Amino acid sequence: MHYPEPISKLIDSFMKLPGIGPKTAARLAFYVLDMKEDTVMEFSRALVDAKRKLTYCSVCGHITDTDPCRICQDSGRDQSMICVVQEPKDVIAMEKMRDYNGLYHVLHGAISPMDGIGPEDINIPDLLKRLQDETVQEVILATNPTIEGEATSMYISRLIKPSGIRTTRIAHGLPVGGDLEYADEVTLSKALEGRREL
Amino acid sequence: MHYPEPISKLIDSFMKLPGIGPKTAARLAFYVLDMKEDTVMEFSRALVDAKRKLTYCSVCGHITDTDPCRICQDSGRDQSMICVVQEPKDVIAMEKMRDYNGLYHVLHGAISPMDGIGPEDINIPDLLKRLQDETVQEVILATNPTIEGEATSMYISRLIKPSGIRTTRIAHGLPVGGDLEYADEVTLSKALEGRREL
Repeated sequence: MHYPEPISKLIDSFMKLPGIGPKTAARLAFYVLDMKEDTVMEFSRALVDAKRKLTYCSVCGHITDTDPCRICQDSGRDQSMICVVQEPKDVIAMEKMRDYNGLYHVLHGAISPMDGIGPEDINIPDLLKRLQDETVQEVILATNPTIEGEATSMYISRLIKPSGIRTTRIAHGLPVGGDLEYADEVTLSKALEGRREL
Repeated sequence: MHYPEPISKLIDSFMKLPGIGPKTAARLAFYVLDMKEDTVMEFSRALVDAKRKLTYCSVCGHITDTDPCRICQDSGRDQSMICVVQEPKDVIAMEKMRDYNGLYHVLHGAISPMDGIGPEDINIPDLLKRLQDETVQEVILATNPTIEGEATSMYISRLIKPSGIRTTRIAHGLPVGGDLEYADEVTLSKALEGRREL
């Protein structure tokens, strides 16, 4: 015997999400059966709305329900700085910090020759267009500290350098609250390299 | 800044599922944004359908999209045996094993005085009604091997004994403290094989 069709379909849907295998999917699907109908309806609507109402900002590439996004529209933000990140969730991580008041540019990926992703496959041309008027004075490269992220930052900085715009890379080092003992060699080496006068 | 509303609503919905905290919920929600629109629509529909189209079988209490359920309707199954389980997912676990060809009865819970769940709060009266005509010759108690499951089995066996119907308990091949849902087929099969008169 198999699951009744409606539940097997729901299990299949849950299994399409990352990190959810058949057992977890079944557990979640059965949990849904016991949820209040209102809550399930809301969940169902939220899925459709998130997919339909959200687009990527035509200026910076961040997810948004208005175009341009709220950050690009906000005249109170420092228009002279653009922070380049790989994914929309990186924008959200930066915004949580509350220390940065400039603009963003979301690449939607990183250069990765191994996966066949070249510079033309990510949102670099739009970034270069944004630098053409002379508002932007600094580009902060905040791609991930991985091989792909580093390569992407290097690539972009070489493209921008000739224009004379200041190009910076966020610092690498020990995470605050971390322990020297548990840091990997590469991080430690970066932390040492980036040491500053006190 | 916060998430755009459609995505924060979706994150909230994911967080209502068991074992999904804010970080996982955000990860899943962002993943949904990158899924194909069709897949998301299907997911959305599957949620509503699972909630609306599925009911509990009026005979055995198993989840079903027909009433009575397919198992209760199947005249090829052994009508003289009823296997009593706590939850619909336990029926599915039993069915996966393919060694059992009788009927089921789903209690939707177990007696648990600590949580204020008494015999009247679970589906016992319907079970007793099913035993009144003389078709059923054996009741297999397959509640979980936990304190609540054992107590429920003991309680039911005492109710049934006077009627002369054979009452058996699946064997403790299952690890004590475990959950029927997660048992592998072989263990379940052993447990069924080693059932003993109570």
